[in-house]
Amino acid sequence: MRNKLIAEFFGTFWLVFGGCGSAVLASAFFSIESQTPINLGIGLVGVAFAFGLTVLTMAYAIGHISGCHLNPAVSIGLAVGGRHPWGEVGPYIVAQVLGGAAGAGVLGIIASGQEGFAFSDGFAANGYADHSPGGYTLLACLVAEVVLTFFFLLIILGATDKRAPAGFAPIAIGLGLTLIHLIGIPVTNLSVNPARSTGPALFVGGWALQQLWLFWVAPIVGAALAGVVYPLFAGKEAK
Amino acid sequence: MRNKLIAEFFGTFWLVFGGCGSAVLASAFFSIESQTPINLGIGLVGVAFAFGLTVLTMAYAIGHISGCHLNPAVSIGLAVGGRHPWGEVGPYIVAQVLGGAAGAGVLGIIASGQEGFAFSDGFAANGYADHSPGGYTLLACLVAEVVLTFFFLLIILGATDKRAPAGFAPIAIGLGLTLIHLIGIPVTNLSVNPARSTGPALFVGGWALQQLWLFWVAPIVGAALAGVVYPLFAGKEAK
Amino acid sequence: MRNKLIAEFFGTFWLVFGGCGSAVLASAFFSIESQTPINLGIGLVGVAFAFGLTVLTMAYAIGHISGCHLNPAVSIGLAVGGRHPWGEVGPYIVAQVLGGAAGAGVLGIIASGQEGFAFSDGFAANGYADHSPGGYTLLACLVAEVVLTFFFLLIILGATDKRAPAGFAPIAIGLGLTLIHLIGIPVTNLSVNPARSTGPALFVGGWALQQLWLFWVAPIVGAALAGVVYPLFAGKEAK
Amino acid sequence: MRNKLIAEFFGTFWLVFGGCGSAVLASAFFSIESQTPINLGIGLVGVAFAFGLTVLTMAYAIGHISGCHLNPAVSIGLAVGGRHPWGEVGPYIVAQVLGGAAGAGVLGIIASGQEGFAFSDGFAANGYADHSPGGYTLLACLVAEVVLTFFFLLIILGATDKRAPAGFAPIAIGLGLTLIHLIGIPVTNLSVNPARSTGPALFVGGWALQQLWLFWVAPIVGAALAGVVYPLFAGKEAK
Repeated sequence: MRNKLIAEFFGTFWLVFGGCGSAVLASAFFSIESQTPINLGIGLVGVAFAFGLTVLTMAYAIGHISGCHLNPAVSIGLAVGGRHPWGEVGPYIVAQVLGGAAGAGVLGIIASGQEGFAFSDGFAANGYADHSPGGYTLLACLVAEVVLTFFFLLIILGATDKRAPAGFAPIAIGLGLTLIHLIGIPVTNLSVNPARSTGPALFVGGWALQQLWLFWVAPIVGAALAGVVYPLFAGKEAK
Repeated sequence: MRNKLIAEFFGTFWLVFGGCGSAVLASAFFSIESQTPINLGIGLVGVAFAFGLTVLTMAYAIGHISGCHLNPAVSIGLAVGGRHPWGEVGPYIVAQVLGGAAGAGVLGIIASGQEGFAFSDGFAANGYADHSPGGYTLLACLVAEVVLTFFFLLIILGATDKRAPAGFAPIAIGLGLTLIHLIGIPVTNLSVNPARSTGPALFVGGWALQQLWLFWVAPIVGAALAGVVYPLFAGKEAK
Repeated sequence: MRNKLIAEFFGTFWLVFGGCGSAVLASAFFSIESQTPINLGIGLVGVAFAFGLTVLTMAYAIGHISGCHLNPAVSIGLAVGGRHPWGEVGPYIVAQVLGGAAGAGVLGIIASGQEGFAFSDGFAANGYADHSPGGYTLLACLVAEVVLTFFFLLIILGATDKRAPAGFAPIAIGLGLTLIHLIGIPVTNLSVNPARSTGPALFVGGWALQQLWLFWVAPIVGAALAGVVYPLFAGKEAK
Repeated sequence: MRNKLIAEFFGTFWLVFGGCGSAVLASAFFSIESQTPINLGIGLVGVAFAFGLTVLTMAYAIGHISGCHLNPAVSIGLAVGGRHPWGEVGPYIVAQVLGGAAGAGVLGIIASGQEGFAFSDGFAANGYADHSPGGYTLLACLVAEVVLTFFFLLIILGATDKRAPAGFAPIAIGLGLTLIHLIGIPVTNLSVNPARSTGPALFVGGWALQQLWLFWVAPIVGAALAGVVYPLFAGKEAK
């Protein structure tokens, strides 16, 4: 159990440090060599790949230790679907939130090494309505987070089904998170993961903490729903 | 059979919601923090990856349940090629069209949460001639959809051949759909899938419904052709 | 043998149609809905992925039929390295060149469906010096094509070595071609494949045909070199 | 041993030639056909994929020969973690540095084939403070390189653990390096690899050589740390 929690800690550290780090450090970047600056930044495509690849890499690196959830909604969704013991869900969530906070903290040390950096510029925190990157309403943000987490868990439950090809689940799940970010960053900056939302919010404070409830409620509702729905049509051989 | 149809429903929901969703919500996105807005949107590269990853993720998640067609042209092409029973083609197509329509509907709820949204701006519907994104003629659009669906089915038939390495077909097929979108979005907004075309067209109405015939005819012709051609050169061991 | 040649024909058709097609149709694309046009095109990143994915998809689709060379330099390099019978090299090259020409021809039909299209704008043909996209000298272009084809064959010979993990070679080889394009499109528009160069050159004519010799000589030299070098350090168990 | 060193030489050549080559030759590229030049360059996203794909491709091509380290920090981290014999570390590092220098040299031949090229423009060398691409402080650069190399080794140690799915490690490790570049290019131009840093620095000279110490110290510290930490929580079955 101790090993599993350390693995979840490092894994969620990596998810928040890497995913939010790509957004904070590299989404826009101007080459200063030429006379007219050129934007070489990674944009939302790069951020989407970064988030997905944190999960793909960690799933191969620590999947055999902890299962590599890195996400309270995933732990709950797997428990609802009968894939993970309820007794481990609490400790897993604690390790994930601590890992996410630590990842955000170390990212803050690096980011503040550039002149002009301020946590109040957003620091990749999630938000809705006035703090939705594209100005989407609370309802739109809620629907997006529920639906996207529902499908994220459907992918996880299906790709780790005993009948699915062995060894490929990290590719499906990691690139599934990339896909989810390709769809939804403009809506909420994309969470589907309460630990990912909590990390940056602790440093941004104010509105980010006030809006944090949605990024716990919506992903958990979507994940639990998938835990209920998948077994209804997956057939008998599902583990 | 019931399980297969539910799987096809959710899978095609995800294809339309995710693929069209990335285009509608994220293809262009301006950072509003800086004085001169920077376009961080995912562009056609991001949309191409999104479409492909919907198929890659679902093929691992539900492939063992329904085969993960998500596309009437695929179901027909596989039946022509002797890989899927004709008796299931009808129900599969109904489930796919319903899933695509539902995916487009839920996407509409989210998209309309941003001020200024209008279905009449396109909503990722497919079109030709006056409604081709790059102004391509009907003939060019017809040829593109037939040829691209032909090769899409060639990839599916080949990668799921018993002699191909097991477990990798979802990667080949999903990234094959990404490739197809990298080529052809400017021509027709890219369909190769009647269910994907029908979903948004139901909400856009007007021209999108009038032009919908091409996105049923061309993909089905291309797919059926591949179902005939592949066995002609694949050799005896093809399943 | 007939089956192998048909497979090589379709595969090389797909490589040229898809790779060059992404460049011709989608590399730059302006959204015309907004007042200030936004470039949503796939750029060189998208073209690099398109070329690589043509090979990745075809290697899974027809690898079990013909080995999926799609490239005269690959057929020659594999023969030099003792991996493919010399007797098949000639017919393979004929099928590849015909496939590439047919792919370029069908692409021409689609591309000419947009107003203002002209083959003389380049049609993704390869060139050096005055016709290098970035104005690179003949020497730089020659070195680039030799070195990049050398490493392309090293990847192919290594990833299909009996000791390498089975089934993954198409990923290594396909994404290897993507990598090669990420490096070298500005130099020669990137060939490493005489059949890929010949297809568009037939339609562009003039300078493209005059410069075609380099895109036969350099890739074949690089590939043959790798066929000699790989066995020197690969050890005894190499097939 | 001779075979292993040749493999490491070619592999590290490819890493530096391909990764730095994509940055030098293709990160910004303007289409000169249209009146207003359009930037079609691959940007930091393309460079990140290029670096990662050099490792992914070589891991499949030469992994069965040398283990495909291509990086002094990786060789040291694996030795600390008990995965590689200490006696081979010295020769491996020599081969890697020579390969990286040769790769940078050949890249220089190609790059100097374009008018206006100068090594003093950067040549993809790594730097901190005044030579950090985004102007990050020495401390921020140090933390970034240590943390990113720590996680790179965690991914390597985990994905090559006997309990992880066989054959997938090159995907996890290669795309892990892509992820690392998506995060940190603006900070230090991203090293996590002393051989990669040394290659271009030899040609840039001056500041690049003066700052080179950091790109030996930080990656080695991060890698060694991971070699110590991974076994602490990986459990007994770790090889």
